[in-house]
Amino acid sequence: MKLETKRHSLAHVMAQAVQQNFPETKIATGPFTEDGFYYDFDFGDQEFSDKDFKKIEKSMKKIISQGQDFRMFEVSYDEARAVLREMWEDFKIELVDKLESGDFKNTEKITGKIYFYINIGKWKQSEKMEKVQKFLEETPLSWEGEGQGVRFDEMDGDQVKNLKFIDMCAGPEHVVNTRDLDANSFKLARAAGAYWLWDEKNQQLTRIYAFAFENKEELDIHLKMLEEAKKRDHRILGKKLQMFDFDEEIWPGLPLWLPAGTVVVDALEDLAKETETAYGYDRVRSPHIAKWKLYHKSGHLPYYEEDMFPAMEMDGEKYYLKAMNCPHHHKIYDSVPKSYRDLPVRFAEYGHCYRNEDSWALFGLMRVRSLCMNDAHIYCTEEQFEEEFVKVIEMYKYYFELFGIEKYEMRLSKHSKEWLGKKYIDNEELWIKTEWQVRSALEKTWVPFVEAEWEWAFYGPKIDVQIWSAIGREFTLATNQLDFAVPWRFELTYMDSDWEEKTPLCIHRAPLSTHERFIWFLLEHFAGVFPLWLAPRQVIVLPVGEKFEWYAREVEKKLKEAGIRVSWDYSSDGLNKKVRNAEKMHHNYILVVWEEEENAGTVSVRNYKTKEQTSETYEDFEKRILEEISNKSL
Amino acid sequence: MKLETKRHSLAHVMAQAVQQNFPETKIATGPFTEDGFYYDFDFGDQEFSDKDFKKIEKSMKKIISQGQDFRMFEVSYDEARAVLREMWEDFKIELVDKLESGDFKNTEKITGKIYFYINIGKWKQSEKMEKVQKFLEETPLSWEGEGQGVRFDEMDGDQVKNLKFIDMCAGPEHVVNTRDLDANSFKLARAAGAYWLWDEKNQQLTRIYAFAFENKEELDIHLKMLEEAKKRDHRILGKKLQMFDFDEEIWPGLPLWLPAGTVVVDALEDLAKETETAYGYDRVRSPHIAKWKLYHKSGHLPYYEEDMFPAMEMDGEKYYLKAMNCPHHHKIYDSVPKSYRDLPVRFAEYGHCYRNEDSWALFGLMRVRSLCMNDAHIYCTEEQFEEEFVKVIEMYKYYFELFGIEKYEMRLSKHSKEWLGKKYIDNEELWIKTEWQVRSALEKTWVPFVEAEWEWAFYGPKIDVQIWSAIGREFTLATNQLDFAVPWRFELTYMDSDWEEKTPLCIHRAPLSTHERFIWFLLEHFAGVFPLWLAPRQVIVLPVGEKFEWYAREVEKKLKEAGIRVSWDYSSDGLNKKVRNAEKMHHNYILVVWEEEENAGTVSVRNYKTKEQTSETYEDFEKRILEEISNKSL
Repeated sequence: MKLETKRHSLAHVMAQAVQQNFPETKIATGPFTEDGFYYDFDFGDQEFSDKDFKKIEKSMKKIISQGQDFRMFEVSYDEARAVLREMWEDFKIELVDKLESGDFKNTEKITGKIYFYINIGKWKQSEKMEKVQKFLEETPLSWEGEGQGVRFDEMDGDQVKNLKFIDMCAGPEHVVNTRDLDANSFKLARAAGAYWLWDEKNQQLTRIYAFAFENKEELDIHLKMLEEAKKRDHRILGKKLQMFDFDEEIWPGLPLWLPAGTVVVDALEDLAKETETAYGYDRVRSPHIAKWKLYHKSGHLPYYEEDMFPAMEMDGEKYYLKAMNCPHHHKIYDSVPKSYRDLPVRFAEYGHCYRNEDSWALFGLMRVRSLCMNDAHIYCTEEQFEEEFVKVIEMYKYYFELFGIEKYEMRLSKHSKEWLGKKYIDNEELWIKTEWQVRSALEKTWVPFVEAEWEWAFYGPKIDVQIWSAIGREFTLATNQLDFAVPWRFELTYMDSDWEEKTPLCIHRAPLSTHERFIWFLLEHFAGVFPLWLAPRQVIVLPVGEKFEWYAREVEKKLKEAGIRVSWDYSSDGLNKKVRNAEKMHHNYILVVWEEEENAGTVSVRNYKTKEQTSETYEDFEKRILEEISNKSL
Repeated sequence: MKLETKRHSLAHVMAQAVQQNFPETKIATGPFTEDGFYYDFDFGDQEFSDKDFKKIEKSMKKIISQGQDFRMFEVSYDEARAVLREMWEDFKIELVDKLESGDFKNTEKITGKIYFYINIGKWKQSEKMEKVQKFLEETPLSWEGEGQGVRFDEMDGDQVKNLKFIDMCAGPEHVVNTRDLDANSFKLARAAGAYWLWDEKNQQLTRIYAFAFENKEELDIHLKMLEEAKKRDHRILGKKLQMFDFDEEIWPGLPLWLPAGTVVVDALEDLAKETETAYGYDRVRSPHIAKWKLYHKSGHLPYYEEDMFPAMEMDGEKYYLKAMNCPHHHKIYDSVPKSYRDLPVRFAEYGHCYRNEDSWALFGLMRVRSLCMNDAHIYCTEEQFEEEFVKVIEMYKYYFELFGIEKYEMRLSKHSKEWLGKKYIDNEELWIKTEWQVRSALEKTWVPFVEAEWEWAFYGPKIDVQIWSAIGREFTLATNQLDFAVPWRFELTYMDSDWEEKTPLCIHRAPLSTHERFIWFLLEHFAGVFPLWLAPRQVIVLPVGEKFEWYAREVEKKLKEAGIRVSWDYSSDGLNKKVRNAEKMHHNYILVVWEEEENAGTVSVRNYKTKEQTSETYEDFEKRILEEISNKSL
């Protein structure tokens, strides 16, 4: 059984438990999540806080041990409304209305049918369920639709008598009986505010998040990971290590990179340049703004307009900050005529993009309004595509190894035949051919991957890349997208050897993601102790007392000349305090110099990460760390 | 006599000559320029084109040889209007009205007085002047003001009879007689459209530009320089060398940097990083947008608003693209508390700024709407200021030497006592002290400089840096500004050793200017043939026939592995065509390989710049050019 099924079933169980303890509560929606599930509630005037979590968990365990059956019934719009009205479930009624009128977000999921998932068991009934029982016994329902499953009006008398909980739910799967759930596999996590139907203008509900896994062991691993993640919280580390800051007068979603953060940003850009140059990319630079016309052509306007920054009107034209770099790269491709001999053309740029995220959704580096993306676009022929795609995946693998990313997975999104020309661009032959090429590239590079249909990849096959940090948390890193629509729309061409003008394919790729997202990941992954080549503070020199400052300055000067990022502490503080301060700022190497070191020309070295302490000549130390840097050792 | 005086006098002479040849012409204004002068005319229905230049020049020479006197008369608003009305000089009348009402741009120049500069000579009078003569003889003028010079109503009868030309003019200086002008020292340059009072909404006039120098020799040098500059036109070279492009769907003022241009941009940034790191700067990165509040505090709003991009309204707040990096750097300074031990703090960033230049003023890389600036801000104490300023100037000198800039000059803008608290921030002591420090820094570094009062440097002493390209054209490179106002406004502080919170001084500096401006300069300066370390195309390998492609590819591979930017031409073209193509794209070294080279392991080298041809072993060649690159040889 899928873990998602259990998580979703537990959401029903939690809702039942909440209504047992808070009978006035109205329920909204409760899906599964990446690490459990949540449910949104309206507690009305009832006083609720996370102190009630214990109580609710206890009720949930009881429900599980009662062995309630889960039963699915198909129900008509009118039946649904009638029953939900008895239960005062106003949010569910609104959903029924919306489903009936088609005014609902995930419209493509709608089949015209709605379902009640009902818990049935022989234990004491709640007042609400007694009311529903009475209503059903007194009001014979009949619905003339074509049922797929069991029709609601076919519910038998025993079932009606033993009603424990009714939820209207899109499904699809639930456990058969609550005993299929492990009473120790979940834990309520936190309560938070959430707008009904994700709309700020609607009522604010109380969302209860819970963790849920196969069993207690897996739950504990996850809880421990989260505890570790808390210590590695990028916002706390970023502040402590003076890497970035947000200023109220600038914008919550726009980070200021302080010197220590800029070192990491610059090192990542240098890495990308070095790697991409070796892979035959050319670097380009594109402006941050363009006329509405460009984004209209690229398809960002009007479909994506609400995610873009508002227009600036100048010279009677509308100008937008770019949300993507691609249209600009297409223009660069187009500015010099190309022949088949020039292909593949690979344009790379750390490009700034601007997205209008809701202000309440902004969160540290995780959700920002300005992204600096490790972007590139590869223009190639159909014949070249597979080899180019292999090279892109090889670059990912090189980066994974460099950063010690051991767990990763790629997810291949494919077309669906039925939706060609609607959700997917109508070129079945090219879809099939390039999907084969992508699959072949994934197999050739021995990358773990899964395949998926029905995803949102209009322009061609797409790969999403998931990575896991050192403490086992999953991050969405980046996307590789093959695009056979937009080059055509931009009228990009190359002159082929047969003297015909042809349209190239285009690969979008960003292996190092955005600076914001990747440094968020790296801070957690390395717990703020970066490999030496990336570390903002590589070495600090601490003389013990003024007397040895002269020698310390010699050491500092030599390290600086060798191109090493070196700090110092010539204050009058005692050695212990100096070391504590140096450790607080995660200096990779702490050099202590005293009389002995000065006489022997040595340095006493403390490795902050391994806690090793050594004494070596200055020359040995310099040589050793220069190697560590140039090898990009972990 | 100042050259400006001659140039300005020649403008009067040209206006007289134009009215001789085109009697219906109305005159507007005619100032001197950096290389001559211009005058704006309304030709009405008269047909005029640059084919008439010869005619006008001939008349000008005649006026010069006539030896007309220049006389200045002080005139009242009413007198001026009366006379100008006789002459149908509508633009001048509008100026009188504006001067009287105070509704005029350069208000601080206005003294309440206006002047007629009149040409007087014994040659035939124009119809217009005859009319004025008649008017003056019939209408006795009298004006009760306090005259500084000779009052207009004191003009004597002889003068009235010999009127040749009347211009209302702000002066201040003109030659005494047209014979003081050299009839061979000027040349009409071109005619262009220009809006009356620089306002697009006003009538378009015809502006005639002219070159003017001390004598014919200097004029010829300038004309030759311009001819050379034409060949070095950055727009033509930029297109030919595929360095940058402008796209109609993006924006005329926003360059797309193609791969070859990005090489130069990146090399300049690497140079700045290397140099600034050696000078103890920290790198930072700041967002491109901020709330109106920030720019209000910095003083950009409202005073500078019309030069900024329009606001974007989000979350009920106004956001602006930054026009300057400074406010952002101040915020970075402020994000971590500072002590006297931390000072000087030096923040460097190649930062993007956005300026709303008028669309008709946009011109190649010279006038753009997005600038990427070699910016930095140095926060220091008063005691540290001079040493920091010396270091900034030393950095300039290092760059001048590196780029072979032999002629340069700095211009020190100082305060004026009378305007303290108005045009200049009111701290006389600090002005005097820091002006001395700046002067001392300039003297210590042996930099040629001039001093100027009455400039627009509100916040502290300022230095403007002028450089001359290899062909002798002057460019404004950058500005260094001391700022003792804004740190205080941003409440920036450091804890001094006496435990008092103090405000640091701030130096703004940008020695490499902006990428746009500097690459514009470099393209002209180097005529598009960059020093090897900067060159987009360092080496190209040309095999003579397919047979030697294998060896050519070996050479190419080795060069690439050595980190050299290498191209190749494996087409079936003949050698001459291959060389021509390679030279067209300014490849610094063209390597030809043939049978002889393959057998001996050598390469035949053509140096594009010096036209030298050598034959050397591959190893010698590689070693030699790697040295040329790492030495950044010119």
